[in-house]
Amino acid sequence: MKSSQTPAELRTLRNFAADAPDEKQIETLKRMARDARLDAVLMTGIAGSGHPAGALSSMDIFNTLFAVADLTPANCCDAAHDRIVVSHGHTSAGVYASLAAWGFVDRDAARANFRRAGSPFQGHVERMVPGVDWGTGNLGQGLAAGVGFALADRACGRTGARVYVVMGDGEQPKGQNAEARRIAVKENLSHITALIDANDIQIGGKIDDVMPANIPLLWAADGWNVIECDGHDYQALYDALKRADVSDLPTVVICRTVMGKGVSFMEGIAEYHGKTASGDLLVKAIQELGGDPAEVERLKKIRTGDLPKGRAVPCEKPSLDLGTPRTYTDADKKDGRGAFGTALADVAKENISVPGRTPILAFDCDLLGSVKLDLFAKVAPDHLVETGIQEHATATVAGAASTAGVVAVWADFGVFGIDEVYNQQRLNDVNHAPIKTVLTHVGLDVGEDGMTHQCIDYVGAFRNFFGYKLVVPADPNQADRATRWMLGEPCAVCLAVGRGVHPVILKEDGTPLFGGDYQYEYGKIDILRDGKDATILAMGHMAVSAIAAADALKAKGVSAQVLHCSAPLGIDAGELVRLVSGKPLVTAEDHHADTGLGAIAALHLARAGVAVKMRNLGVTRYGDSGKASEVVARMGLTPADIATAVESLR
Amino acid sequence: MKSSQTPAELRTLRNFAADAPDEKQIETLKRMARDARLDAVLMTGIAGSGHPAGALSSMDIFNTLFAVADLTPANCCDAAHDRIVVSHGHTSAGVYASLAAWGFVDRDAARANFRRAGSPFQGHVERMVPGVDWGTGNLGQGLAAGVGFALADRACGRTGARVYVVMGDGEQPKGQNAEARRIAVKENLSHITALIDANDIQIGGKIDDVMPANIPLLWAADGWNVIECDGHDYQALYDALKRADVSDLPTVVICRTVMGKGVSFMEGIAEYHGKTASGDLLVKAIQELGGDPAEVERLKKIRTGDLPKGRAVPCEKPSLDLGTPRTYTDADKKDGRGAFGTALADVAKENISVPGRTPILAFDCDLLGSVKLDLFAKVAPDHLVETGIQEHATATVAGAASTAGVVAVWADFGVFGIDEVYNQQRLNDVNHAPIKTVLTHVGLDVGEDGMTHQCIDYVGAFRNFFGYKLVVPADPNQADRATRWMLGEPCAVCLAVGRGVHPVILKEDGTPLFGGDYQYEYGKIDILRDGKDATILAMGHMAVSAIAAADALKAKGVSAQVLHCSAPLGIDAGELVRLVSGKPLVTAEDHHADTGLGAIAALHLARAGVAVKMRNLGVTRYGDSGKASEVVARMGLTPADIATAVESLR
Repeated sequence: MKSSQTPAELRTLRNFAADAPDEKQIETLKRMARDARLDAVLMTGIAGSGHPAGALSSMDIFNTLFAVADLTPANCCDAAHDRIVVSHGHTSAGVYASLAAWGFVDRDAARANFRRAGSPFQGHVERMVPGVDWGTGNLGQGLAAGVGFALADRACGRTGARVYVVMGDGEQPKGQNAEARRIAVKENLSHITALIDANDIQIGGKIDDVMPANIPLLWAADGWNVIECDGHDYQALYDALKRADVSDLPTVVICRTVMGKGVSFMEGIAEYHGKTASGDLLVKAIQELGGDPAEVERLKKIRTGDLPKGRAVPCEKPSLDLGTPRTYTDADKKDGRGAFGTALADVAKENISVPGRTPILAFDCDLLGSVKLDLFAKVAPDHLVETGIQEHATATVAGAASTAGVVAVWADFGVFGIDEVYNQQRLNDVNHAPIKTVLTHVGLDVGEDGMTHQCIDYVGAFRNFFGYKLVVPADPNQADRATRWMLGEPCAVCLAVGRGVHPVILKEDGTPLFGGDYQYEYGKIDILRDGKDATILAMGHMAVSAIAAADALKAKGVSAQVLHCSAPLGIDAGELVRLVSGKPLVTAEDHHADTGLGAIAALHLARAGVAVKMRNLGVTRYGDSGKASEVVARMGLTPADIATAVESLR
Repeated sequence: MKSSQTPAELRTLRNFAADAPDEKQIETLKRMARDARLDAVLMTGIAGSGHPAGALSSMDIFNTLFAVADLTPANCCDAAHDRIVVSHGHTSAGVYASLAAWGFVDRDAARANFRRAGSPFQGHVERMVPGVDWGTGNLGQGLAAGVGFALADRACGRTGARVYVVMGDGEQPKGQNAEARRIAVKENLSHITALIDANDIQIGGKIDDVMPANIPLLWAADGWNVIECDGHDYQALYDALKRADVSDLPTVVICRTVMGKGVSFMEGIAEYHGKTASGDLLVKAIQELGGDPAEVERLKKIRTGDLPKGRAVPCEKPSLDLGTPRTYTDADKKDGRGAFGTALADVAKENISVPGRTPILAFDCDLLGSVKLDLFAKVAPDHLVETGIQEHATATVAGAASTAGVVAVWADFGVFGIDEVYNQQRLNDVNHAPIKTVLTHVGLDVGEDGMTHQCIDYVGAFRNFFGYKLVVPADPNQADRATRWMLGEPCAVCLAVGRGVHPVILKEDGTPLFGGDYQYEYGKIDILRDGKDATILAMGHMAVSAIAAADALKAKGVSAQVLHCSAPLGIDAGELVRLVSGKPLVTAEDHHADTGLGAIAALHLARAGVAVKMRNLGVTRYGDSGKASEVVARMGLTPADIATAVESLR
């Protein structure tokens, strides 16, 4: 995209080189803001859709930030730059107008193609627009993203880097904000500054009528430095940000603003939150902002032309030595989570002191020993971030960090790492965040903790996303290798392992099947046993039961092949259909029977137009609370149940 | 279950009839608590699993609450009773021991069958145990549940009812708590009292080391009355609760406690959060609590016997006149959300002044006009609960309210009503909460707001649960009737509608197919057009495009039947297989192609062993931001795309 020129006279404001903006600088900033307000009104007016009043309200905040932050068209695709997160992403028209004013994007392209299908200038800011480091839209996420960037800055040694998060006042009550505030304070992230566009209005009207909250007190209660200022006064904004820049605490600047600022009929009117100016009112708004109404027709014509292209979202493969895989035997009594924790600690040890290697940050929500991050914490104590029982913020913190030069590993129970944070993970996916999520307690294998803690829906949940890879290892050896593979991948991966110790999967010759030189290959179907009469397709530790079932069937003269799929979302569909065609199929998983591997296999078969006799063994109600083996048995998932199912199909 | 005897001398404590407990009463309470501590140690010791130290820490709080609250074995299954929500559900052993002491459950049954597969005495408290009104386990949910109960009390006119919520200190940082606090204050719920078991220890160690939070200040900042007291001193606890009982504000009592209280080697030791006493230590603990170690063997024997049964979770069909359905024509330009909002307002109007009818509470998260609750708000302003941008708490508030004598309707955009609160909805499902969730903006139909706001995974998400019914109407007439049906159902229902105005579905004779006397029937497949050459199976407003495709095919001499499924999770599978067998099948939905109706159809076909040529048209990447029609077109979901897909299979 072409760039506008950034005024030379503003250069001394960047990085707070000047004590204060001088009169000429303020004039320039005001002129830029007026033009950007015009652009925001044009964008939303031409699109006939969008959120003009918030864009106008935040405009002077955006403009000040782009003046002071070390974020430029030249450095915005690198890992090292100051970051400006816009949490109230519906002010996108304001963001694009500011980005155009500061040369990140072409002004006409932005003005003409706002909310046009296929354009990067979407209704809510997304990362394909240069200068946007975190796509938002669902409110209450931005502060946590900023915390993630700030943690990545520290881990990468980007001293002097700053993170700014602009937020709406209506989103202040979202609980995730409070969680993020506490992480910032605990981690001493003094280089993060939040700015609240406090225009006192949200969709439903006055903030105090919709949901009262004592905003300054809430931030102060969590330990933030609180500054209030006029959000349309450049002297005041610069001064507040300069004070924040030298504060020892994270700072929030509560910017008192007027919704719809600059357009007379929008000022202070809640309706213009999501309503655009049209017809005569659009002309009036353009004129008030010194624009030419004829621009509307010119831009509408551009809107019918070629779609502008967004940037390729930056993504780098981690630079890590993945170490030497370990091979476990049953004598090791290793559970999947332990194999993960050990491999992670191995890789951390291998890389932590080597210059140029990508730093690993591990995130824990008060389950350090249970999720086996204690091993990592011993090797790399400074890279372990303990965020307490605050999963919503943690998911976003880790997601954002993963885009900013670190490998971010978040380990948690399944119900917390995906169920509790489903939307945060969805937004990580939207943001192309290469977060590594490790679910250490999935399936009925969780046992005694019962139905609230048994994550029997992780496949069904991740299946709704598009970018996430999901890996469910069969045994500790595959878990070891999958962990190492995951750490080197430049995309989002979820590793789902169980709580229990299960036997190591062996070849028929008695040696570990996933040991030795075995390398993890995403999507590959593991053939655990050959057989011609039927297929048992298993996922995770149920592979062990599947083999036991096949052994039992063999004794009865039935030859069942046993397949394992560690990558239900990436399974090689053609190979699957080839392998299972022509004989009965029993799928076995301690996952919801309608949404897991069995359902995926059924979908691939149906799409291929192939029918086999099939039974899907899985979880068909919320599980019991008791020993995992008993819980599994009461759900009808024992080797005997599997064998019986096979026989019932013959 | 059999009941123990509740001591007569404690009777004057109930409802705070006494000014203070006398010495004899305190002696009795202490004795009961000691016995209950013994039981909790026995339970966890025999199960070899559980959370003893928190149970011991909270025991005097539980015991005081059961003494003062109007919650008894006699009234606990009715709608009207004081409620005690235990948010830190892992203290279940303490809860069961208290319930046994107060006669709710049989003491031996609870002691012997804790965490035994199939027993109601699960690892985290669940509603099949009498006296448990809300199942918890995942932390940070209990306060919102309490707020829901308090709102239901008010709506049902249960003056004098009280709600107590016992919480851990480790779960205080969960953002959902702050959201719930604000709702309680805004709604003037002075009859709710939270009690924090402040033992200063969580799994990872000291609270201040894991995640510092200024707990009293946070509650005060949100407007709560804050009291602190010794959580093991019955005089102090009674006094604090009595003060809370007359407070004009919701009150939090911060109870200073000792983790593991009463067992010398557990006191103050974080390890005993999730570790039980065994062997000699179990004997030592039993002896310290005045018990007989021989009980262990006796109870273990009981544990091998018959499983105790839990109660049937109480659930009543709402008493509502569902009014007269409306029939819309295209001239009405009615969108699905508008049809919902109108029908809800109709039903509210019909019932609001009629004695004996179930009150309807509607919940809004600052989207009143968008989700069309403005119509309800006009009819029943006192029954509209505006909770602001705080979806996590709202989901639980509405869920809990729905179990307590009101019809709770929560309307929100799809991404907020399910994606953002996936786990809250899962826990509603675990709790058999008959919440009515209305997703007003689902599918690509959301248009300009773009990928963060396009909920293309609601089927895939709800599919992971077990109790929820999901309804996706084809047009405003079906939406009207489905809304009325939903309001009368005694179970959880999600109604998913779109943002856009689409044509009314007509019969071939030109009259509205879902108009007139049409009654909504859950699970039924709607036959929109007959045809012999192929099947188009559509969901929601895509039915209109499916008919258009069939019309286009007809012109080419291809006779396609058009089916609509409004109940993807409850579809009549046998009928589906019968209808679609023997001809090509194209499924069409503006939902994720791998997890929606197409995937469900594929699963049923595969399970039936039936293969047809099939193509699943749906969403295969995150959607664009633009006019809905253009977004749909760019995803390849136009009538022409559907027709082409049909032809490609012939």
